[in-house]
Amino acid sequence: MQRKVSADSLKQFAQACFVAVGISNEDADWAAHTLVEADLQGLETHGVMRLMAYVNGVSIGKINPRPNVKVHRTGPVTSVMDGDHGLGSVTGRQASELAVELARDNGLGAVTVKRGNHLGALSIYTEWATRFGMIGLLCCNAFPSVPPWGGRRAYFGTNPIALAAPTDGDYPISIDLATSVVARGHIVMAAKRGEPIPEGWAIDSMGRPTTDAMEALDGAVLPMAGPKGYALALLVEILAGALSGAKLGDEVGTMFGDDPEPPGTGFFYLAIHPDYFVGRPAFIERIMRLVDDIHETPLAQGTDHIYIPGERRFLEKVRRRRDGIPIRQETWDEFSALAARYPITLPEVLDER
Amino acid sequence: MQRKVSADSLKQFAQACFVAVGISNEDADWAAHTLVEADLQGLETHGVMRLMAYVNGVSIGKINPRPNVKVHRTGPVTSVMDGDHGLGSVTGRQASELAVELARDNGLGAVTVKRGNHLGALSIYTEWATRFGMIGLLCCNAFPSVPPWGGRRAYFGTNPIALAAPTDGDYPISIDLATSVVARGHIVMAAKRGEPIPEGWAIDSMGRPTTDAMEALDGAVLPMAGPKGYALALLVEILAGALSGAKLGDEVGTMFGDDPEPPGTGFFYLAIHPDYFVGRPAFIERIMRLVDDIHETPLAQGTDHIYIPGERRFLEKVRRRRDGIPIRQETWDEFSALAARYPITLPEVLDER
Repeated sequence: MQRKVSADSLKQFAQACFVAVGISNEDADWAAHTLVEADLQGLETHGVMRLMAYVNGVSIGKINPRPNVKVHRTGPVTSVMDGDHGLGSVTGRQASELAVELARDNGLGAVTVKRGNHLGALSIYTEWATRFGMIGLLCCNAFPSVPPWGGRRAYFGTNPIALAAPTDGDYPISIDLATSVVARGHIVMAAKRGEPIPEGWAIDSMGRPTTDAMEALDGAVLPMAGPKGYALALLVEILAGALSGAKLGDEVGTMFGDDPEPPGTGFFYLAIHPDYFVGRPAFIERIMRLVDDIHETPLAQGTDHIYIPGERRFLEKVRRRRDGIPIRQETWDEFSALAARYPITLPEVLDER
Repeated sequence: MQRKVSADSLKQFAQACFVAVGISNEDADWAAHTLVEADLQGLETHGVMRLMAYVNGVSIGKINPRPNVKVHRTGPVTSVMDGDHGLGSVTGRQASELAVELARDNGLGAVTVKRGNHLGALSIYTEWATRFGMIGLLCCNAFPSVPPWGGRRAYFGTNPIALAAPTDGDYPISIDLATSVVARGHIVMAAKRGEPIPEGWAIDSMGRPTTDAMEALDGAVLPMAGPKGYALALLVEILAGALSGAKLGDEVGTMFGDDPEPPGTGFFYLAIHPDYFVGRPAFIERIMRLVDDIHETPLAQGTDHIYIPGERRFLEKVRRRRDGIPIRQETWDEFSALAARYPITLPEVLDER
């Protein structure tokens, strides 16, 4: 069965769960916001289907509910952070705010984070910079799931990279992509539902192609576009892993399971202020020209609209704000378990089918 | 017939050609170096097969042999450059030097270039930063050859992105990739030789898949990994095109042909100093750990070695320094025409077969 719930009700529920495991009201509010925001945008794998994993993560010690985050300003435009294994969403926001602040005064700001944690949808943080008229660029390393091209053992994470640029339209341009063929979350989701995965997504532990989601989780996800995806995963590992002092490559832990070891993920955030380049008005005009040009490109057969990165998520958000957020049965079962455990009132159901 | 020539002799020849069309000795020296360096590294499409196009470009006005390059320092870590349509290699080097200088004092340095020109192999410039222990990141826009995903008309260039990081081994990690399935140069080369191209590389002007290189040049090259490559091409267009004030998207001109309009390309260069993050010694140790880990990854069937980005080019360079650089007959014919035109002595041939 699929239920629909309102964003507000869902956020209240998620926040209460975070507070129940010892997270401050303020941090719980933001963490819940990021999950619901992902669901609103149709990014299910970064949404509340992860709530149980986060809550369990706090319970077993993977996530520090009251981290002592340390920020060290190393120069006029640079800072390094030690996230102390707090919620990735909370540390990610601090890093974003800091980078934007640095860039406001000097044109650029870069912040690395070590002892970060699972970050979720990167676009939430890059879009933060666009509120201040800036470009935000963010990448992070992640639990090993992708081998270097030609290898059969997972070494890199899905190592996503995201960039958002301000527009004067309804939504920013917001690029956010895993450097693997797919985000590992899609395979986690298929495994959870007992469904097969398409060919070309993954290899098993022996390096053989597989369509079995469980075997793929034991094996490796393939990099996007073969050697190019491998190179991009390495690019992300250099910036987010090597430069930050975080765990590197296959040292990075998982946010799932019973092992209390925190993931130890690294982030790299760069904010760029257009006023120090072509100037903000010219930049926005040029960005809008890109948007318009792309929308007006003659269509290939079978296409009815060319989407700007971020456009589809914006439209989905408008729809789901109005119609509610669909929650799968298996996620609802986790909600019910959480509601009974703490106890917390379940989100109000708008619609069941 | 294929000839082999020494790198030194080839460089002397290329330099003399550049000087013959009015480029200063110093600029000609560097421009010739970049072409020969590309050939040494096995990057034929960025090598001396382009010499005739550059020389003609100067003759017809696409390339300004004596540009009045303007640099405007906009803040402590940022500068904008107007390349005045000089050789891309010369402007690219100036931008790299400047970004490295800014990053030395402040941890980061970013330089954008407008009225740039054809840049060639980006890795030459990103590797520049590694000589100073820094990370170099460079991207540029280019003559339209790739449609946005779902479109059938070329809008983006192959929009390459490159990043190099210092190591304490024989070569830096040096990532350099077009965000299209292939660099347009490979299709130019196939067209020149009358050879077909593999399926999946390109569409014709009507948006239909094609294996005809000439039709592909009239049509469009596909982005790597479909929508992800489109998103990355846009990322590059935002940084190198929109932010720099350069020509944007399909306004960018070509370096080929008889139209005297310069390409008007834009560059974005970012230098990152590890001392302002994890510290240089720790960074190098961590980078070497990445290199070793990747080399030690268990191999997939059919693989005998996993290459680090830049490793293959380094090995090729060692080989070609020793054995000479192979020159195809059609390139040699162009050399002969140039040698007769100016007149210049042809490079010394080491070996013919």
